[in-house]
Amino acid sequence: MRLKNIPGAKERLDERTDLCIVDPETKINLVEIFKNDNPVHIEIGSGKGKFITGLAELNKDINYIAVEKYHSVLIKILDKLENSQLKNIKLMSLDASDILDVFDINSIDRIYLNFSDPWHKARHSKRRLTHSNFLEKYEQILKSGKEIHFKTDNRKLFEFSIESLNNYGLKISDLSLDLHKDELDFVNITTEYEDKYSDKGPIYRLVATFK
Amino acid sequence: MRLKNIPGAKERLDERTDLCIVDPETKINLVEIFKNDNPVHIEIGSGKGKFITGLAELNKDINYIAVEKYHSVLIKILDKLENSQLKNIKLMSLDASDILDVFDINSIDRIYLNFSDPWHKARHSKRRLTHSNFLEKYEQILKSGKEIHFKTDNRKLFEFSIESLNNYGLKISDLSLDLHKDELDFVNITTEYEDKYSDKGPIYRLVATFK
Repeated sequence: MRLKNIPGAKERLDERTDLCIVDPETKINLVEIFKNDNPVHIEIGSGKGKFITGLAELNKDINYIAVEKYHSVLIKILDKLENSQLKNIKLMSLDASDILDVFDINSIDRIYLNFSDPWHKARHSKRRLTHSNFLEKYEQILKSGKEIHFKTDNRKLFEFSIESLNNYGLKISDLSLDLHKDELDFVNITTEYEDKYSDKGPIYRLVATFK
Repeated sequence: MRLKNIPGAKERLDERTDLCIVDPETKINLVEIFKNDNPVHIEIGSGKGKFITGLAELNKDINYIAVEKYHSVLIKILDKLENSQLKNIKLMSLDASDILDVFDINSIDRIYLNFSDPWHKARHSKRRLTHSNFLEKYEQILKSGKEIHFKTDNRKLFEFSIESLNNYGLKISDLSLDLHKDELDFVNITTEYEDKYSDKGPIYRLVATFK
């Protein structure tokens, strides 16, 4: 998501190096950062962070990183963290294209993509987070057999994503074309966006696994 | 589709061996049947036949076979054919499970599946026409690189089908999660069922190709 630029946002993140990894340019050491070797799940494009902070509350033995491009957005999650006692979540300001600069090969246990920018123009298709250019990167940072969890309300993005994931050779499972109408065997933690728009049309979801 | 049994239906089909292939039990010779070697497209589960007769009208250089289990349903298509001059379509009474008994390996150029029975109970999943047991058969009768065209309004069947086709290794393309809202670059010939139910919810469509 995009917000208007908030002056001083970067400075606020910089003040909390215990919680934030600001504009990293080299590989990070996950064990050092979390002080344990629990599995690490990342969300790429965390928005205001309701989803990933909700997961972090629920699963204390999993480490979470909220990856988000905009400082002005990340401080919304920082607000949430400063009001919580969560030790298992960090915020990272980073463009999704740069994940290979930061995460080691085979270091991540799960990637979440929620309501990513649909980039509806065909000439912008390479910017979609389920484009093969991104899948190549996810394949590298994910441990073998680990999953991408993807939700969107954007029909065209979901259609594109199914074809892209299929064509790349990922196994698609847990596919729902109307998540909020399904009986679920897991807790569907919603995003702020999902709460706002889910009565306008279906929420689509799938899980994809590199074979 | 299922209709109540109509007495004399089989006899009516038997009378028109120029148009009907009734309960075949051995391999058929497509060139002999159509008196030419044009490509052959089949629809499995043709219902009342609006779709396949519409295609046959539109594409005179393609041969069509309407495969349908029930004699009582096939005579509805026979009614249509008897009022037309179409030479490029035949009707076949056959259970979809038996296609390998009838069609030669690598003989078919396209398979259409339209609004197939969803068989919503999990224990009946093997009866769904996009189950891997059927895909194995389609793979044999289809020529290399040829396509399955699939439409349904049943969300659960479409979810199942995407996963099944993906898992079998087919390439998925032309995916639409709301066909009637899309701008199409082809003529979407509708079925009777599609005309009746498309205002109740989205029509889903995809094309799948054996790699």
